[in-house]
Amino acid sequence: MYEHHLSDNGQVLSLRKDGHETRFHAIWLRDNAQDAQTRSPANGQRLIALRDISEDLAISAAEITGTRLSLTFQPEDRSIDYDLAWLERHAYDRPAERRPGWTADPVETWDSRLMERLPTADFGAVQSDPAALQGWLADIARYGFGKLTGGPVQDQALMQVVDLFGHVRETNYGRHFEVRTEVNPTNLAYTGLGLQAHTDNPYRDPVPTIQVLYCLESSAAGGENMVVDGFRVAERLRDENQDWFNVLSRHCARFEYAGSDGVILRSRRPMIELAPDGELIGVRFNNRSAAAITDVPFDEMATYYAAYRRMGEIIDDPAMEVSFRLEPGESFLVDNTRVLHARKAYSGTGTRWFQGCYADMDGLHSTLASLQERRPEAAE
Amino acid sequence: MYEHHLSDNGQVLSLRKDGHETRFHAIWLRDNAQDAQTRSPANGQRLIALRDISEDLAISAAEITGTRLSLTFQPEDRSIDYDLAWLERHAYDRPAERRPGWTADPVETWDSRLMERLPTADFGAVQSDPAALQGWLADIARYGFGKLTGGPVQDQALMQVVDLFGHVRETNYGRHFEVRTEVNPTNLAYTGLGLQAHTDNPYRDPVPTIQVLYCLESSAAGGENMVVDGFRVAERLRDENQDWFNVLSRHCARFEYAGSDGVILRSRRPMIELAPDGELIGVRFNNRSAAAITDVPFDEMATYYAAYRRMGEIIDDPAMEVSFRLEPGESFLVDNTRVLHARKAYSGTGTRWFQGCYADMDGLHSTLASLQERRPEAAE
Repeated sequence: MYEHHLSDNGQVLSLRKDGHETRFHAIWLRDNAQDAQTRSPANGQRLIALRDISEDLAISAAEITGTRLSLTFQPEDRSIDYDLAWLERHAYDRPAERRPGWTADPVETWDSRLMERLPTADFGAVQSDPAALQGWLADIARYGFGKLTGGPVQDQALMQVVDLFGHVRETNYGRHFEVRTEVNPTNLAYTGLGLQAHTDNPYRDPVPTIQVLYCLESSAAGGENMVVDGFRVAERLRDENQDWFNVLSRHCARFEYAGSDGVILRSRRPMIELAPDGELIGVRFNNRSAAAITDVPFDEMATYYAAYRRMGEIIDDPAMEVSFRLEPGESFLVDNTRVLHARKAYSGTGTRWFQGCYADMDGLHSTLASLQERRPEAAE
Repeated sequence: MYEHHLSDNGQVLSLRKDGHETRFHAIWLRDNAQDAQTRSPANGQRLIALRDISEDLAISAAEITGTRLSLTFQPEDRSIDYDLAWLERHAYDRPAERRPGWTADPVETWDSRLMERLPTADFGAVQSDPAALQGWLADIARYGFGKLTGGPVQDQALMQVVDLFGHVRETNYGRHFEVRTEVNPTNLAYTGLGLQAHTDNPYRDPVPTIQVLYCLESSAAGGENMVVDGFRVAERLRDENQDWFNVLSRHCARFEYAGSDGVILRSRRPMIELAPDGELIGVRFNNRSAAAITDVPFDEMATYYAAYRRMGEIIDDPAMEVSFRLEPGESFLVDNTRVLHARKAYSGTGTRWFQGCYADMDGLHSTLASLQERRPEAAE
């Protein structure tokens, strides 16, 4: 049972339940009213702007009836009903201050032990069964990557992977790109060299938030794929040395790619990106395209390089790595704002042919949220 | 003439010219070597990782010959040449601490007075003349928007605009979307609605960083387009009240769109987005898709709403607004991370048909940088 209390001349409403009090401001409540004059019943969009709400707003009366709270606002002199459960879900009156580098649900960071339970699904299943698709997308939202098996060995089959949840992000590399050994590579990705684990295209802004890699041929020895959780890397760095975490998150690195004609891509972003309230929202790490770092003050540059070196060591630590070999018709997807990927060296005999493309996490989260709303019983 | 000086046991190199001293760290210099073993001469990518550079690195000798600096590194015992002009351009030993909300070159913020010199180019010219294209793209990089006149009145002509510099960002709205209303004077309920200036799709992450709007029919009265420089809005807010600027940049807002089947897009980003060192890098403002703000501590929520209200008032101030009418075959492009756009009310008989699409600024900056390198004399 809720009790309510108005204070501050109608500026603040307090709700009390089981000894716990939650306060709301009148302006917040009015702005977030869910009635048909404030929000379109058809599409949920807000029909008013803040300028339509009086600066002299106050709550003159409040009443609770069952699961509803009715508030009367002045000077409108209008009563609006609120769902108490909605208010509880959207309460903001709580102790703030989380430790920088916190992650939000459903993110779960991991190390090499995730290899025992690799997030994997069957290509046919995710195409035909919404529950299988939901499970696979939920794994990607949680772990930042997922593997698919049993797909067709067919040119551009990777497009069918993207069709499951969103849209291809076309870039100067095309709608998709070929990853096979080239004689005069414009990018080191197109050689047989092993590549240190990295995020793709940090020189792009916004970076593509998803990369899909799809195997079409794989008879060369070696060339295993591996992934590392950049969020776990950042957490480990923070736990080892808070100063190192701080210096990489408080200063921008620079990245650049100018390997093809007509393309000069440059960005200025931190290697560890935090939201203003400290949420860990992105990792950029790529030795090949790191440009000269010129935005770190002289007095912090030695610390910056120590932190950058240690971040690379953590990334290279086998205890952080999940590796797997892709056979033709198999693919994997990474959240490119979080999970680094690498390829081990492969030999000249035999062939290795992958196709890759980019897409974005917002579409994936949207498809997942929509599946979860339709099948709430399946959502954890 | 440069003089040089080694200190700190070979950890720091100082260059002095005309009484001005600039220091570089040995590790920074080694990491940023431009020799063929460090950087691929073909594509400019770095061939080594930080792990390939010894932790015991030191500079044992330095020598200047003309425009070159030669450094000998230990324990490699290897000499690498540096271009002194390159070092000067990439120097990082300078007083830091700029005021939060600073903007980088070539950004120039503006208000309604920009109407006298609207950044405009001719569709045929930018297609055929690299200098015209370069000028138009440079205007967009500077002002965050640009207009094109004299284009074809043809379905999907807007794709030709995107082809000038990059690639369409396909979303749940498709590769492009129709903005079409048949004005029916007998049903005034569906006419006359203007939209408050806003950025598009703040509920997407990453947001599309470019929007193109292309006019195909425009016989209705009214319906002018207008744009507001969100960066100037943020500067004005900061100059009026630093606390208000801070509260909007230090806490995340939330945005949501769930208006179509299968689509539930949600984001958590600040209305004023700063890089960790205070550079102003983005503005999100959209009353229709603003969701309940739940990441602002109770004690700051009243200040947050005061700041949010004032930000809207500045956006609505006619002194901030540049407006123009698009005729068939005309289009405009906005940097959607910076410039808000709006449509004024329209009424009367006739039709209004626009097509819109999204793209990204990184491709535009890349094309511009490439044109500037080829035609450096034209770059300011």
